[in-house]
Amino acid sequence: MSDLTKTAITPPTHTAPPARFSHGVRKGNILQVAGQVGFLPAVEGQPPTPAGPTLREQVLQTLANVRSVLEAGGATFEDVVMVRVYLTDTAHFAEFNALYDDFFAELEQPPAARTTVYVGLPAGLLVEIDALAVLG
Amino acid sequence: MSDLTKTAITPPTHTAPPARFSHGVRKGNILQVAGQVGFLPAVEGQPPTPAGPTLREQVLQTLANVRSVLEAGGATFEDVVMVRVYLTDTAHFAEFNALYDDFFAELEQPPAARTTVYVGLPAGLLVEIDALAVLG
Amino acid sequence: MSDLTKTAITPPTHTAPPARFSHGVRKGNILQVAGQVGFLPAVEGQPPTPAGPTLREQVLQTLANVRSVLEAGGATFEDVVMVRVYLTDTAHFAEFNALYDDFFAELEQPPAARTTVYVGLPAGLLVEIDALAVLG
Repeated sequence: MSDLTKTAITPPTHTAPPARFSHGVRKGNILQVAGQVGFLPAVEGQPPTPAGPTLREQVLQTLANVRSVLEAGGATFEDVVMVRVYLTDTAHFAEFNALYDDFFAELEQPPAARTTVYVGLPAGLLVEIDALAVLG
Repeated sequence: MSDLTKTAITPPTHTAPPARFSHGVRKGNILQVAGQVGFLPAVEGQPPTPAGPTLREQVLQTLANVRSVLEAGGATFEDVVMVRVYLTDTAHFAEFNALYDDFFAELEQPPAARTTVYVGLPAGLLVEIDALAVLG
Repeated sequence: MSDLTKTAITPPTHTAPPARFSHGVRKGNILQVAGQVGFLPAVEGQPPTPAGPTLREQVLQTLANVRSVLEAGGATFEDVVMVRVYLTDTAHFAEFNALYDDFFAELEQPPAARTTVYVGLPAGLLVEIDALAVLG
């Protein structure tokens, strides 16, 4: 069926992925956003550069990148059922939560479920976020 | 469509989440349980307190909390297709698996898929579990 | 409805799981592959043995194991919307990506979304991968 075609999503702000995967994929009413980090909008000929150096800047850029993928796939944060947050340091949890609350307060959206885990990330990256949306 | 309304789930045993997200979300036939930890049932005016101090107590409380969210959303473990387990120590794996087996033996449920990863968690927490259910 | 029966998937190449869960579960058009590691095909009476000792061997075996579960559940990598990769060392990222690209180039499949996180794994294991598929 045509509505079960799998479509790869690449927002105009994003560079091509560094391997054979997509920033997001939609199939039927499921939209999966790949792990997003705090890279600034892509500039032709330059390597990906994270926002920063503060946690605040990286978190807001990361959330903006998740939103870009959702929107390029025809969804909004309203459609998201799960947000997975990867932090590198448990000491970032309180500040992250405050930034997250502010971001979603602006959007007036109902909350999604969330899991926060503490992992390693490539050097210079403080946060990664992926999301699962179910479109209505 | 009314059956694609997104509904946040907060079981009566749970405190309000520490940030703008929910303990679980249902949309259509998808129910996502947020990362649950081993907090005892909420007591008005007291901070969340993990069961313990043993791994056994935390694991059983965590599984009970996952079940509370499922049930508050109209689902059971029978509907779960994926369980993600986050442990802090690979040395906990064998004991965790024995507890997990016992728990699901009681429920007579067919198994769900599972991933176990070893990550950091906030101080005092030994295990976190999230789950994805597809309702029939 | 019959098409919403939950079915556990165990490919013939796999050992019985070490706890009460399945290598994969299908319910409706959702197929969830549990975390796969680089164990060689099961041999009766022998403990699970990882391919190795190189990263290349473990990665290719892990991807083959994910494919075995997908195929045993009636799906292919074409149906996968999310691949989660767990590496133990950020220094493995570049080689992993090259192997991943080669693997999917052979399959001529469109990309799925992906998240790569750096975590601990049991001794001897370098990579774990799980996947979510939506069947068409």
